[in-house]
Amino acid sequence: MWGRFEILKRDSRTQARLGRLVTRRGVIETPVFMPVATAGSVKAVPPEVVAALSARILLANTYHLYLRPGPEVIRRAGGLHTFMGWPRAILTDSGGFQVYSLSGFREILEEGVRFRSHLDGSEHLLTPEKSLEIQAALDSDIRMVLDVCIPYPSSREETERFTDLTHLWAERSLAWWRTSSSRGALLFGIVQGGMFADLRQRSAETLVSMGFDGYAIGGLSVGEPRELMLEMLTATVPHLPEDRPRYLMGVGTPEDILEAVARGVDMFDCVLPTRNARRGTVFTSEGTFHIRNARYKEDFRPLDPACGCYTCRRFSRAYLRHLFHSGELLIYFLLTVHNLSFYLKFMAEIRRAIGAGRFEEFRESFYRQKEESLCGK
Amino acid sequence: MWGRFEILKRDSRTQARLGRLVTRRGVIETPVFMPVATAGSVKAVPPEVVAALSARILLANTYHLYLRPGPEVIRRAGGLHTFMGWPRAILTDSGGFQVYSLSGFREILEEGVRFRSHLDGSEHLLTPEKSLEIQAALDSDIRMVLDVCIPYPSSREETERFTDLTHLWAERSLAWWRTSSSRGALLFGIVQGGMFADLRQRSAETLVSMGFDGYAIGGLSVGEPRELMLEMLTATVPHLPEDRPRYLMGVGTPEDILEAVARGVDMFDCVLPTRNARRGTVFTSEGTFHIRNARYKEDFRPLDPACGCYTCRRFSRAYLRHLFHSGELLIYFLLTVHNLSFYLKFMAEIRRAIGAGRFEEFRESFYRQKEESLCGK
Repeated sequence: MWGRFEILKRDSRTQARLGRLVTRRGVIETPVFMPVATAGSVKAVPPEVVAALSARILLANTYHLYLRPGPEVIRRAGGLHTFMGWPRAILTDSGGFQVYSLSGFREILEEGVRFRSHLDGSEHLLTPEKSLEIQAALDSDIRMVLDVCIPYPSSREETERFTDLTHLWAERSLAWWRTSSSRGALLFGIVQGGMFADLRQRSAETLVSMGFDGYAIGGLSVGEPRELMLEMLTATVPHLPEDRPRYLMGVGTPEDILEAVARGVDMFDCVLPTRNARRGTVFTSEGTFHIRNARYKEDFRPLDPACGCYTCRRFSRAYLRHLFHSGELLIYFLLTVHNLSFYLKFMAEIRRAIGAGRFEEFRESFYRQKEESLCGK
Repeated sequence: MWGRFEILKRDSRTQARLGRLVTRRGVIETPVFMPVATAGSVKAVPPEVVAALSARILLANTYHLYLRPGPEVIRRAGGLHTFMGWPRAILTDSGGFQVYSLSGFREILEEGVRFRSHLDGSEHLLTPEKSLEIQAALDSDIRMVLDVCIPYPSSREETERFTDLTHLWAERSLAWWRTSSSRGALLFGIVQGGMFADLRQRSAETLVSMGFDGYAIGGLSVGEPRELMLEMLTATVPHLPEDRPRYLMGVGTPEDILEAVARGVDMFDCVLPTRNARRGTVFTSEGTFHIRNARYKEDFRPLDPACGCYTCRRFSRAYLRHLFHSGELLIYFLLTVHNLSFYLKFMAEIRRAIGAGRFEEFRESFYRQKEESLCGK
């Protein structure tokens, strides 16, 4: 029962699909966006507010929670849901990506990846088994296998070597998983293969033959041109099973999400809405803008007149600009609520469009509106 | 009708009193604590949440709002209430105290006080009339006259000179007030007199003879010993009219508030609950503690088992400690909600005790509990 994934509707002109994924902590309609709760909180926003924005599932980072407060604290708290006060679903990554991006020192061994904590310089070894042990302590609902994140650009030889190691680690992860009690949690494999279409295909087929609950597409949006990312996506998705969820890790802008949905992706996470909010950049139906701009000094309109979020119902651009310039902490809450609301409503519109058989119209109107607002500037 | 102040109950053994102050934006039960919204926001907490904590009136700082975003922006927004999304009452100070404490340069002239902005070094002249003009643009419900904040320690001569100037400014403020349209806003005078009981008495009598809607006691809690503050309070309050609210500016700890209530004070504001929250110090029924402490690492109890605030209902000390150490923005919201809740409930308990004729018992039990928790440590 947990892990059941139903396709409710397939778009006739693209690969987009409307689905339902059953997790231990609720049913998730896909395509879905997962707000990021790196260290066990969606930055600046209490969990009730995140839930009220209709978020069904959050992503938390195993690397951060492993280093601080440590998996044992969270296990004793009764798991991450209890610890952070979020009763809905949580997906945890393997910790690998942060090892590659945050740790000053790292060494990839066959056994796992050795790294130094970015907090205190202490040395750690993260293995596929250890990643799953940590994720079990966190008691997340969807867990990811440890993979090797391949830098961009990489040679074909290096890409092949790291992709093979990813497969070896995936095997070991599955072996560990079969002997442990998953209690209904789901395990996702991660496709690598760098920027080589045939390696992507081989990686997808290898992982699918192992049999995971879902498949993530890793190693994209790592600095390559956008066209190349979409090309790799197009090369990967057809080799993933129809009846399993597909998750594009760490992507992306609304445009990127729209294009990935059109190529058959079901799940997304990205720090953009929350991180941009903290930096003062807001997403609106007419494009993005920065709240610091002098033109908003006496602009008493909401951030986005088409938005009905708490921030847009109650506060003006002039007030938000004032908070931003004054360094008032409330700005982080208000802009994060707005940006998350924008992303989550965008996903709901995508789902509605697929369900109504008008995804292609939605996609076209999205680009038309974007063009118009660019010309209007 | 606006400004009516009724005493509902007088304590038989102390000067404590239970009252109701009618403002344009609601009736305020006294003794009351006013959370501080310096630059037009209670730091880290959205106005709806502040209202849900039963705050009836906020204090906003004229100095900060004058410099940024400027009174004209707020006037055009429709006043501070609309600008910041707070429909209940607002008290604004005169701006004088911040001129003395924040501005690098200041010069007290008979006309007013010349100062440099702590933001950009620009030079400004704040006069009694100008302070009231700014407060009129903010459209606050209770406004304060500009006074001279007398440093501690000061000679008798200096104290006398500044107290006389305070009286002169109070006269000019009243003259301005009578020719302007206050539309039901209230104007409070501020008693000075430094640390000299007879000057305090003279200042109180002088201001009372002018006839204000309420009386603030200024220039206390400026570095003097606590005993001296209470002595000055005892010397001042008897010379203020029974039928007007009394406001002790910038005070204080729960103990200070309790002692001031016992001496007949009705209104309080202080940055302690909000500022301490941001620094990780929490108020509880068993005293204050710092959330950073290692002893809370696996302490899964709420901050204060006797507290029912949102933070205490949902989160453990272990989680809050984790957020604090991780620099997660959510900690500011959660600890501020708790500390404000503590202060506002403390005031409600004081009011209940006065109403039930057992204020002295409440005061004694407060000190007994404090002593026990100190001994228990």
